[in-house]
Amino acid sequence: MQTFSPITEQIIELALTEDLVAGDMTTDAICDDGRRTSRGYLVAKADIVLCGQHVFEYVVEKVQNRAFGAFEPVTVEFLHPDGARLEKGTKIATFSGSTNILLKAERTALNFLQHMSGVATQTHAMAQLLGPKIKLVNTRKVLAGMRELDHYAVQCGGGYSHRFNLGGGVMIKDNHIAAAGSITKAVSQCREFAPHTLKIEVEVTSLDEVREALAAGADIIMLDNMTHDVMKEACDIIGNRALIEISGNVTVESAEQIRDLRVQYVSSGSLTHSVRAADISMLFER
Amino acid sequence: MQTFSPITEQIIELALTEDLVAGDMTTDAICDDGRRTSRGYLVAKADIVLCGQHVFEYVVEKVQNRAFGAFEPVTVEFLHPDGARLEKGTKIATFSGSTNILLKAERTALNFLQHMSGVATQTHAMAQLLGPKIKLVNTRKVLAGMRELDHYAVQCGGGYSHRFNLGGGVMIKDNHIAAAGSITKAVSQCREFAPHTLKIEVEVTSLDEVREALAAGADIIMLDNMTHDVMKEACDIIGNRALIEISGNVTVESAEQIRDLRVQYVSSGSLTHSVRAADISMLFER
Amino acid sequence: MQTFSPITEQIIELALTEDLVAGDMTTDAICDDGRRTSRGYLVAKADIVLCGQHVFEYVVEKVQNRAFGAFEPVTVEFLHPDGARLEKGTKIATFSGSTNILLKAERTALNFLQHMSGVATQTHAMAQLLGPKIKLVNTRKVLAGMRELDHYAVQCGGGYSHRFNLGGGVMIKDNHIAAAGSITKAVSQCREFAPHTLKIEVEVTSLDEVREALAAGADIIMLDNMTHDVMKEACDIIGNRALIEISGNVTVESAEQIRDLRVQYVSSGSLTHSVRAADISMLFER
Amino acid sequence: MQTFSPITEQIIELALTEDLVAGDMTTDAICDDGRRTSRGYLVAKADIVLCGQHVFEYVVEKVQNRAFGAFEPVTVEFLHPDGARLEKGTKIATFSGSTNILLKAERTALNFLQHMSGVATQTHAMAQLLGPKIKLVNTRKVLAGMRELDHYAVQCGGGYSHRFNLGGGVMIKDNHIAAAGSITKAVSQCREFAPHTLKIEVEVTSLDEVREALAAGADIIMLDNMTHDVMKEACDIIGNRALIEISGNVTVESAEQIRDLRVQYVSSGSLTHSVRAADISMLFER
Amino acid sequence: MQTFSPITEQIIELALTEDLVAGDMTTDAICDDGRRTSRGYLVAKADIVLCGQHVFEYVVEKVQNRAFGAFEPVTVEFLHPDGARLEKGTKIATFSGSTNILLKAERTALNFLQHMSGVATQTHAMAQLLGPKIKLVNTRKVLAGMRELDHYAVQCGGGYSHRFNLGGGVMIKDNHIAAAGSITKAVSQCREFAPHTLKIEVEVTSLDEVREALAAGADIIMLDNMTHDVMKEACDIIGNRALIEISGNVTVESAEQIRDLRVQYVSSGSLTHSVRAADISMLFER
Amino acid sequence: MQTFSPITEQIIELALTEDLVAGDMTTDAICDDGRRTSRGYLVAKADIVLCGQHVFEYVVEKVQNRAFGAFEPVTVEFLHPDGARLEKGTKIATFSGSTNILLKAERTALNFLQHMSGVATQTHAMAQLLGPKIKLVNTRKVLAGMRELDHYAVQCGGGYSHRFNLGGGVMIKDNHIAAAGSITKAVSQCREFAPHTLKIEVEVTSLDEVREALAAGADIIMLDNMTHDVMKEACDIIGNRALIEISGNVTVESAEQIRDLRVQYVSSGSLTHSVRAADISMLFER
Repeated sequence: MQTFSPITEQIIELALTEDLVAGDMTTDAICDDGRRTSRGYLVAKADIVLCGQHVFEYVVEKVQNRAFGAFEPVTVEFLHPDGARLEKGTKIATFSGSTNILLKAERTALNFLQHMSGVATQTHAMAQLLGPKIKLVNTRKVLAGMRELDHYAVQCGGGYSHRFNLGGGVMIKDNHIAAAGSITKAVSQCREFAPHTLKIEVEVTSLDEVREALAAGADIIMLDNMTHDVMKEACDIIGNRALIEISGNVTVESAEQIRDLRVQYVSSGSLTHSVRAADISMLFER
Repeated sequence: MQTFSPITEQIIELALTEDLVAGDMTTDAICDDGRRTSRGYLVAKADIVLCGQHVFEYVVEKVQNRAFGAFEPVTVEFLHPDGARLEKGTKIATFSGSTNILLKAERTALNFLQHMSGVATQTHAMAQLLGPKIKLVNTRKVLAGMRELDHYAVQCGGGYSHRFNLGGGVMIKDNHIAAAGSITKAVSQCREFAPHTLKIEVEVTSLDEVREALAAGADIIMLDNMTHDVMKEACDIIGNRALIEISGNVTVESAEQIRDLRVQYVSSGSLTHSVRAADISMLFER
Repeated sequence: MQTFSPITEQIIELALTEDLVAGDMTTDAICDDGRRTSRGYLVAKADIVLCGQHVFEYVVEKVQNRAFGAFEPVTVEFLHPDGARLEKGTKIATFSGSTNILLKAERTALNFLQHMSGVATQTHAMAQLLGPKIKLVNTRKVLAGMRELDHYAVQCGGGYSHRFNLGGGVMIKDNHIAAAGSITKAVSQCREFAPHTLKIEVEVTSLDEVREALAAGADIIMLDNMTHDVMKEACDIIGNRALIEISGNVTVESAEQIRDLRVQYVSSGSLTHSVRAADISMLFER
Repeated sequence: MQTFSPITEQIIELALTEDLVAGDMTTDAICDDGRRTSRGYLVAKADIVLCGQHVFEYVVEKVQNRAFGAFEPVTVEFLHPDGARLEKGTKIATFSGSTNILLKAERTALNFLQHMSGVATQTHAMAQLLGPKIKLVNTRKVLAGMRELDHYAVQCGGGYSHRFNLGGGVMIKDNHIAAAGSITKAVSQCREFAPHTLKIEVEVTSLDEVREALAAGADIIMLDNMTHDVMKEACDIIGNRALIEISGNVTVESAEQIRDLRVQYVSSGSLTHSVRAADISMLFER
Repeated sequence: MQTFSPITEQIIELALTEDLVAGDMTTDAICDDGRRTSRGYLVAKADIVLCGQHVFEYVVEKVQNRAFGAFEPVTVEFLHPDGARLEKGTKIATFSGSTNILLKAERTALNFLQHMSGVATQTHAMAQLLGPKIKLVNTRKVLAGMRELDHYAVQCGGGYSHRFNLGGGVMIKDNHIAAAGSITKAVSQCREFAPHTLKIEVEVTSLDEVREALAAGADIIMLDNMTHDVMKEACDIIGNRALIEISGNVTVESAEQIRDLRVQYVSSGSLTHSVRAADISMLFER
Repeated sequence: MQTFSPITEQIIELALTEDLVAGDMTTDAICDDGRRTSRGYLVAKADIVLCGQHVFEYVVEKVQNRAFGAFEPVTVEFLHPDGARLEKGTKIATFSGSTNILLKAERTALNFLQHMSGVATQTHAMAQLLGPKIKLVNTRKVLAGMRELDHYAVQCGGGYSHRFNLGGGVMIKDNHIAAAGSITKAVSQCREFAPHTLKIEVEVTSLDEVREALAAGADIIMLDNMTHDVMKEACDIIGNRALIEISGNVTVESAEQIRDLRVQYVSSGSLTHSVRAADISMLFER
């Protein structure tokens, strides 16, 4: 089950506004009669993890809700759940109904589906490399308006959410430390001020900072820009006294080293800021 | 000079809403005093084509416009124009002002800058491969809300715009041809109905279709899914009687072949649907 | 002094969205440099009553606020106040500044100015026919989003406002009378339920209804679809016990008859639903 | 078939906001019970070309969607398609359902219907004068928020669309020519920069400019402010090498002369900026 | 029957945005399957006047409309109409359906129901004290976005509406009198300028002002900050020549005195600015 | 320093829309000249904790930004910071400038200021009763659109924030426990799924549940509906192994008992759902 917040509805409307604000001259010239129908299917043109079917359906529905006069309703049936791993060539969904509506919705609906499946696909690949003991989490490096959808896509790919936004966690970075004067003071001020429902995470760059963060009572310690050996030592120091997170892309080479560490979380911005759209085609049957 | 449409303002607001709607607990706990200041700079951590500085400035300004009480105004100064090719290590901009405001704006501002510079950077790379005689154009495969910004980024990278949206050109695809009955009928209906300010483009898959499109008076012919030899023959048939466009990603290998064709335009969806965020850091001076 | 409600800001933004959402390809191709400047003036090409200068300025300002990079600010100076009667050929305003911004704002700004001046001009003409003793009032027959601006334009032309919207007065029409069972009951129910800050107006079609409305305590009686003689008798019956309003367009012929009646108000839908745009040109000096 | 873009939905909402934001005191005082019903019909009180029925239905539906508690649903049935030419006295539609909902929606729904039918009616009249060989096209002189609806109305009246907005075509006017330095340079810059999906139109005022525009490769030439004889000569010079457009209102007198010219397009701002609302009444049966 | 204006829809959306923008982590972790169902009821935990059931239902519906995938639809059935006086312990409504949807909507739906029932409850209490001859009316001291809903709640509690907003009546306060120079001038200017559909109310502080307002033709006179005896004398002076309104909270003590006056209206800001939420619980059956 | 999110800007705009959408007939009739000025001050008419001055200023600024033509700018100067405890009679702020603008902004600006000061005032009173060792926190029982402003007001009164919205913490209530099958399973599922940046809070009703929650690793335990003695025992069981929160209003009587418990947090819905507007007057000098 997936639910949208009003913000997600807004981003979908924005996409429809951009594409349809000046009409679809081609489609209206040729297929003005809403009763002319087409049928066809979506197909994966590469191995993908499927994600975004509800947005796809929603876009089609939105275009249809703004169609007037006589027309054949569009139906879309997805053949696999979000999160399914599909091999190249798999039929993803079938559709049929008014050609006019289908053509107007096609690009916007596909843009979301391909992007979200792209996020899920690369999350899955990276999560596989990390293995079952380490959780791969996304970041706030998400394109405008896509926060909720991309979080969902990361989950469909086997990843997890870091804080949703600036209000979804306390995260003390170097600039905060500099402003507070020390990790100790920064943690103390956050514990005093921030909601007690949020954990306090501290980004550290040395073993001394690890020890200070621990002593200050940080709930999560993020090891930033350390060599593998130093990270290893940091993990030993921390033990079970705090959760441990590291940051960065995961490659075949780096994964082996990471799996060797006793960290619980790896966060990666590229899951959402550098997405390769999944190769999905929408084919109309002749 | 860059101007924003109201839609672009809306997508920026949506990004700020997502990130700031529940406050920034960390920053307000530690840097509640708006007069505490920071200074620092943006730096390219890889070779990039810079793009998006006005959005960056705008995001900072928006956050500042919603700050109240005493605070030190933020200034950002970009050291290079959009479109500049910067080597790894180049300082991109300097900034100074209220720490609180800078920290709240940082992620949202960077998300836009990195994405747009990413679009510009990969457009530039692909355009270089094609050489000066062929124009690289984007498509409508753009993420929601980013239409105007990504078009601009493509231009900064040396590319050009295809139709902005469904109303910015007539584009007859196979489904339209099927619906109309033939290319001839499809072109004729579009010429009758669509604004005379729009050219008529037809997507063709065979030399017979090329001939039919030409005879029907298509202004632009898009060669779809043809072998190199067939494309070459198509170009000979068309000559100067229509503009010629082909579609697809451009690689080192494919570029040589493409340059061999007498096409004027290459359109590529990956310029905008599969963007690798440019590696840019925002560093605060201690 | 004129103030806008947020709704008026929204309609202006909608106008800008419609026109600028896909960019201004011509202007950006030719005048991309924001420092290129133009100067010129607005001129009346017919006798007009001027109205809408603040919207004109606001549109230009909005476009300018969304321009980034180096550009020459635009200044617009109106030479006459709203409501001024200007003869054909009169210079209305002068402007200068960035050509790019001026060209992008031109059409949207003029659309408002010409429409509002058109409303003011025809209101003035009709009000002149009625003379000083009878107030010409507008109706709710106003195009979407233009309610506040058109009310203002009517005032600039010498007219007055009827109720702004369904909540700005009680207006009992034949359908309400039918639903209530009688004028007496309808008035009584409205007096019980509606805010005591609103007057109660009843639309009547016969002298019997006039008497019933008066007896029921109607504050305003609207004479609908009566002959001149019946209206005259109605006015005699009513005297000073209620305000009297009649409805309809005012022509040279009808005006004389209307002036003969002791009515205080004439309401006319055509003031706002059938507007002839005032002929105003925006000329750039070479 | 007609489809709305999100912008059209927004303008309709704005209209409903304006009229209903403070409630309908009269209707709620008298017809608070949603189960009280009315029936009636819409009738043409003059010869009209019908247009806007989907907006009418949509407005009623919107009001109904925001009604709660028990009420009788409203049904509206239009008896003629948009574009139908109806004689004075023709019944346009029938309706029945909750009196409360009908009264709240009435004015807003009629405002759109009367305006759009007004546009269609005067477009039809003007197009008839021009005859079948010349296409009558609208302009961007459209009131705020009405762009999509007015374009549709022009089509229903037998007219055609010029560019939808600033991004829907390249249109080089005198100010652009001045900025570029010459027609030749202006066309060249637009061909380089603007999407190749857009034709390039040049506004010319002399035969020399006609020749320059032709030589520069303009796709459309607009003859501005020329005498009939000069226009005739211009048409001869241009022949089939470019499309020819002239601008201006069309009257019985001017039409004959225009039909004499070999122009393909006549554009007229008054189709949309100076609309006379069609005379349509909504009558409730007693 | 209750109808919402678009503004009310916007405030409900804002409430849903605030609460759901970052997801409901708890519910999605535990009840991700939309087919898991719950049932339960709403119960009054104190004596209340019920109000807001349509908003409650609407909130649930909105959350459900944004749920995708398989889920059990939610049904809510209210057992009493808005305005019903319910004793502590009364079951207000029953509900059943998808647990996920119910949990996400619960708080937002209850916030409205409790607030509106709170307004209705305290209006009822105060109106009871005043008795049937004096109307208790609300003011413009209403929280942002709640104008329409709170007016409705006041009516459900037996109160009435004062002017809905600044455009729903003419209200001359001391600052207006100072600006105009005198009550006489202020009334005269308003009669000239303001819509004739609005009554003119004057706030007076002395018997001299009462006499001046009467002479000027004020429709409503508001007695401000006078002793009981002076108010009594004012009422005698005014008689039936104007409506009389006094302002202030109503307590058991003050009510007796007020009932002694021949005033028609008592306005009270606390009805809406100082609301005690009604104690209503939403109980799920195990 | 206070910053607004875009949502807060929206709620302020909604308030201005509601009040100003139909104009201010009184003010425009009397003080149409924007250069007419007034001066005056805000005064506390009871002991208050001040809060909301930035919203006050912002509302005035928004009205002024939409004023056109010549007018005297308004200045407002607050004499005390937000959070200041002011005795009855204290002058809060001074203002001067265009009478027209001041009168139009007055009510909307005061509505926010009085509400927010009301929240701060009653939070302060309740926090005083609890003493320095226990933090008083708000809940999600906040009126629509006021989430950010009310959280700020609670802080100004000496209180703290609980989770901002459904995404700002994990909160397992009885319905979640029922759905999961047990506290143990519910906690486990949340730990697996929810962001690791959020603490897990469990609402318990018995000592057995306390023990189960502790064993499951709950970060926060909320004691619900327990007698004082059972709560005391619960606190002993929990010790330092989890944070302890209780819920409910705080009265003089209950405070003593609560202070006797070793709980860290008391949450109270009435801080925001049952607010008594602070008594503040805006007085114009004659």
